[in-house]
Amino acid sequence: MEERSMNMMMPEDSAELRALYEAFKTNHLNPLWTQIGDLMPQHPKPRAKAHVWKWSELYPLAQQSGELVPVGRGGERRAIGLANPGLGGEAYISPTLWCAIQYLGPKETAPEHRHSQNAFRFVVEGEGVWTVVNGDPVRMSRGDFLLTPGWNFHGHHNETDQPMAWIDGLDIPFSYQNDVGFFEFGSDRVTDYATPDYSRGERLWCHPGLRPLSGLENTVSSPIGAYRWEYTDRALTEQLLLEEEGQPATFGQGHAGVRYINPTTGGDVMPTIRAEFHRLREGVETATRREVGSTVFQVFEGRGAVVMNGERKTLEKGDIFVIPSWVAWSLEAETQFDLFRFSDAPIMERLNFNRTLVEDADA
Amino acid sequence: MEERSMNMMMPEDSAELRALYEAFKTNHLNPLWTQIGDLMPQHPKPRAKAHVWKWSELYPLAQQSGELVPVGRGGERRAIGLANPGLGGEAYISPTLWCAIQYLGPKETAPEHRHSQNAFRFVVEGEGVWTVVNGDPVRMSRGDFLLTPGWNFHGHHNETDQPMAWIDGLDIPFSYQNDVGFFEFGSDRVTDYATPDYSRGERLWCHPGLRPLSGLENTVSSPIGAYRWEYTDRALTEQLLLEEEGQPATFGQGHAGVRYINPTTGGDVMPTIRAEFHRLREGVETATRREVGSTVFQVFEGRGAVVMNGERKTLEKGDIFVIPSWVAWSLEAETQFDLFRFSDAPIMERLNFNRTLVEDADA
Amino acid sequence: MEERSMNMMMPEDSAELRALYEAFKTNHLNPLWTQIGDLMPQHPKPRAKAHVWKWSELYPLAQQSGELVPVGRGGERRAIGLANPGLGGEAYISPTLWCAIQYLGPKETAPEHRHSQNAFRFVVEGEGVWTVVNGDPVRMSRGDFLLTPGWNFHGHHNETDQPMAWIDGLDIPFSYQNDVGFFEFGSDRVTDYATPDYSRGERLWCHPGLRPLSGLENTVSSPIGAYRWEYTDRALTEQLLLEEEGQPATFGQGHAGVRYINPTTGGDVMPTIRAEFHRLREGVETATRREVGSTVFQVFEGRGAVVMNGERKTLEKGDIFVIPSWVAWSLEAETQFDLFRFSDAPIMERLNFNRTLVEDADA
Amino acid sequence: MEERSMNMMMPEDSAELRALYEAFKTNHLNPLWTQIGDLMPQHPKPRAKAHVWKWSELYPLAQQSGELVPVGRGGERRAIGLANPGLGGEAYISPTLWCAIQYLGPKETAPEHRHSQNAFRFVVEGEGVWTVVNGDPVRMSRGDFLLTPGWNFHGHHNETDQPMAWIDGLDIPFSYQNDVGFFEFGSDRVTDYATPDYSRGERLWCHPGLRPLSGLENTVSSPIGAYRWEYTDRALTEQLLLEEEGQPATFGQGHAGVRYINPTTGGDVMPTIRAEFHRLREGVETATRREVGSTVFQVFEGRGAVVMNGERKTLEKGDIFVIPSWVAWSLEAETQFDLFRFSDAPIMERLNFNRTLVEDADA
Repeated sequence: MEERSMNMMMPEDSAELRALYEAFKTNHLNPLWTQIGDLMPQHPKPRAKAHVWKWSELYPLAQQSGELVPVGRGGERRAIGLANPGLGGEAYISPTLWCAIQYLGPKETAPEHRHSQNAFRFVVEGEGVWTVVNGDPVRMSRGDFLLTPGWNFHGHHNETDQPMAWIDGLDIPFSYQNDVGFFEFGSDRVTDYATPDYSRGERLWCHPGLRPLSGLENTVSSPIGAYRWEYTDRALTEQLLLEEEGQPATFGQGHAGVRYINPTTGGDVMPTIRAEFHRLREGVETATRREVGSTVFQVFEGRGAVVMNGERKTLEKGDIFVIPSWVAWSLEAETQFDLFRFSDAPIMERLNFNRTLVEDADA
Repeated sequence: MEERSMNMMMPEDSAELRALYEAFKTNHLNPLWTQIGDLMPQHPKPRAKAHVWKWSELYPLAQQSGELVPVGRGGERRAIGLANPGLGGEAYISPTLWCAIQYLGPKETAPEHRHSQNAFRFVVEGEGVWTVVNGDPVRMSRGDFLLTPGWNFHGHHNETDQPMAWIDGLDIPFSYQNDVGFFEFGSDRVTDYATPDYSRGERLWCHPGLRPLSGLENTVSSPIGAYRWEYTDRALTEQLLLEEEGQPATFGQGHAGVRYINPTTGGDVMPTIRAEFHRLREGVETATRREVGSTVFQVFEGRGAVVMNGERKTLEKGDIFVIPSWVAWSLEAETQFDLFRFSDAPIMERLNFNRTLVEDADA
Repeated sequence: MEERSMNMMMPEDSAELRALYEAFKTNHLNPLWTQIGDLMPQHPKPRAKAHVWKWSELYPLAQQSGELVPVGRGGERRAIGLANPGLGGEAYISPTLWCAIQYLGPKETAPEHRHSQNAFRFVVEGEGVWTVVNGDPVRMSRGDFLLTPGWNFHGHHNETDQPMAWIDGLDIPFSYQNDVGFFEFGSDRVTDYATPDYSRGERLWCHPGLRPLSGLENTVSSPIGAYRWEYTDRALTEQLLLEEEGQPATFGQGHAGVRYINPTTGGDVMPTIRAEFHRLREGVETATRREVGSTVFQVFEGRGAVVMNGERKTLEKGDIFVIPSWVAWSLEAETQFDLFRFSDAPIMERLNFNRTLVEDADA
Repeated sequence: MEERSMNMMMPEDSAELRALYEAFKTNHLNPLWTQIGDLMPQHPKPRAKAHVWKWSELYPLAQQSGELVPVGRGGERRAIGLANPGLGGEAYISPTLWCAIQYLGPKETAPEHRHSQNAFRFVVEGEGVWTVVNGDPVRMSRGDFLLTPGWNFHGHHNETDQPMAWIDGLDIPFSYQNDVGFFEFGSDRVTDYATPDYSRGERLWCHPGLRPLSGLENTVSSPIGAYRWEYTDRALTEQLLLEEEGQPATFGQGHAGVRYINPTTGGDVMPTIRAEFHRLREGVETATRREVGSTVFQVFEGRGAVVMNGERKTLEKGDIFVIPSWVAWSLEAETQFDLFRFSDAPIMERLNFNRTLVEDADA
């Protein structure tokens, strides 16, 4: 792309010009010609930075919060947001996405509320918490991906004598920036302390290729409260086995992947957030990609690295990293490498801003 | 609805009138006014009849065919179509649908071909046959629902020393009537005699709430080759358990049901055919319904009855019955009662002809 | 395509075989293997014939009907259906479509009714009739395309001292064959004898690129009652002018065309019927095409010919011809050649049976 | 809605707590519990203010810019953005939308470029400029609404000896905030200085109810470059006439309105921006509404007032006002009152954040 080298619209300084610019201010105006290069760059130039948070640093801080800060009404959640270094300290991992580590001590309850913001949880380790979504208790265990779509009441409680931590993902920055959020308090406790193995949503909806006759209306978000690790793992395992059998099944050579979907439509689980799980065979390096929109990964298992804008960062279990819009990135697997991923891709696709550039083929 | 009692358009007989009507014929014309009552009735008045075929009569005839008629190229399939008594002997179970019992002897192969017509199979008993769909071998076992969407090559082979029979469902009458069908021969044998427990399509697609990243393009028909009885049974069982727990889960009181879907869209498995499975608790009687379009049931397990146009027919395992358009029908369960169902509902819905009338509430 | 030359499934005649076939009949069964070549041909082999009806023969017969047959309740319409020579005398121009010439004498009224069947009218000559659709009077004039989607009440009345004739198009054969039709009588007169130049539907909806805020819900069929010749003619004229200016605008070289659409969706005007208008420059010959589904043309102006299955028929104003499924066809323009077209393409597309083969490029 | 009155998550100050909060900062973390009330309010609490800009002040400043600032490459456009008083001086009329007055002197040319951002122009007065969109020259005249969807090259030139001003609307703030923008320079001049009355897009697409056969693929944005005032005015006039005739046609009593649409889909003209035109009869007061998302109006003709959050502002020709998310608003018409409106409603609807509250009925 050619660089902007000229600007015919920079008149010489003069009293009249200064008066005009002053009048702009007084009248709540601001000219395009002095700022177009910043406002409308030749390609996305995010203020957000590519960044890695180490689980080995996150978890102890969450633990200390558990000791110092009680959980309850008002603050609502013991959740610590990952604040992108480029975004001025705000708890935004990207301009659109929120990612936090949430921590619940033994026997604690996080009270019920609901909000327009779409939310999910992903569990990298631990068990013993149930999240209650519109009265349906949902077990949370390692590898599970759990949904709380906008405007569903939800609270959490820990049944055990051990603390538990997980990550939350929401569209809080997008909602805040665009003034779309509503919020309502619910019960100070959760409405059902039962601890079933499977939620009612799963029992109705988690039968492959089947849809209950009582649920023929499509829903904006998925009716499935928990996407169990057992299924995710099996799907990835089968893809790699099929690849070994010479069948088309993987996303790239040695690179298996699934997208979590709303079974009523086959589309994304929520209107603003996409979630996927990726597995790389040991030794695999992915192609370098650029995508419009921001994406977040958490390492679930294994060791490897991410290269973002040419900079290589090693990764291990629990580490979280964000790739801002149009940043070049690729992954490398030192061992078999399992990663959970979420992004704002549904926003980009529904508004037709999505673009992808694959810079080189898979190694 | 008022009855047609008058006809202002019946002029007195005259030489001129007879000459006019003769000229119509000569010129390939036919007036509306003499036939509108038949052509455009006040509600659907199907020529097709409500009818029950007994499995106890069907199966022995299929068996005899197995002894007398070899299977192979040309005739292609040892399939015996159920011919609706109202449709003049044609092998049409309804104006849109074909239903046949197909029979494959020990070690036999039905050769490969493909056609525009959409097809499925449902297995009421037996095992040991694999259907090979576009090269993917799919095991057929009791309770399984198996797909062969239009224009996929497919053949069948029996691996065992026992014969096996199942039912085929297709849109042959619709395709024939509307001149949409193409047909192509494939291999005289099946292209892969492997006998895996699970087909490649299942291994890629049968993980609840998950979609492979290699399959993000929506497909016209479902990529799942086999919908296993294990899942269907579990889904129905869970619905009835949830109902016992006081949760909304069933289609009607004591009436569980699932629809087989295309996981890429959440919609019907094929563009012209809907398939469902229904389970009634012992003693349940459904509401009486009328629907536009024709539907076929096969009893999978249990005893009960169907009432069609006021006439009650007892039913047992394997029995097949057809309900033509707008015929009033209800089901009664003497024992727990399991039924497979298929219909032309996608045609009716996609063309906006669908209507349903529920005449009385569930007992 | 290879021809079927063998049939392994033709066992030698025997008493047992005859008994089996007899038992099939008794039990309302019919084997596939004796008839598959007919039921499932290698490509569509329609019973319907390609055929041309001459306006010069149709119109006088309609006129005689006007003298001999009164119009009114019961027969409902003085409409004479074009009966495809291949379809046994039924008033079906194709397996899916009905086409009739309708004739209304001076001051006559055709009473109101409604039906599930979708209907339109096209006016090749004349004026003076208003069709009243759900109480909205719609003027009918030369070149206008007028809609009566399923389940809208409608009647017609002739305000003048001159008779008027036009063609009706409906999905009667499809509806009859598939048992989807409902019918209800309305007023014996039309409910509004006003004779406005423009109907209310047009006044709300016929502003290009605009949609009334009172009409933001999409509708199954178009809310436009009349597509005026003035607009159609202008659209075609502009396409040919743009082509002369070197711009991409026409369907083929010298071949302009428009599709009538539902402005709420941009799609077809009704769920089962597509309508288009084509204009060929003098001397143009179109490519030869085959399409799945049946199509009907009426010459609106000019002289030319159609070649169907290699047979050439000359055409002039008012002539109507039908092209059954998969019949090869092309058009030739002796003068500038204007043709109205309708087809069952929405059925084929919505059910994914559509295919097109262009056999040679435009001359 | 209940107010947040308690906060169990405010532990007493301590050295450990301060150390924890310090460690959060060091590790790019930020807790939810200290800020949830701001981040997730009970209803949208926009920083953007409801505000009115007077045309009588805007136009002279644009004129002075015309004298002092040349137009050309680099700055690209002599456009002065309306900067919402609540958004810190940024040239954002709302968090999602940009609105500017653009001014082009006699014989001037604004050079060609293209960008991902979606743009339109609306002309409240004047004429003589052509905007050239992907090589198609489009006349700009009073009352016209003109499109430049994302990634279409466009430049403007003034053919006359008079200056001309209009307003631009874009999704610049949304694109900037979410890092989706690409930009490319084109010709330093416009590629076609022809001055036709109607653009090629209009000649192909502005025929009501018709679609060219050369344009059967749906497009993300409308193919219509100019929505002419003549059509808009006529549509509004007809709605009010129909209302007088007792027909349902208007949006509210005495309140006519149209939405500008993409004729290929019936939906909004561009993926992020909705545009409408409203006409109130003299004396009409609309209901008070709250909507999620931000909206901008410009008075086209007449006098009246807007009430926003209870504050009444009088309005006259050219005045522009913005209504941030969930601000209560209503309009009052002193004379017949014509207003152009645009908003980010497609963003809200596509992401399922849309909500509307009508607080009282139309007077």
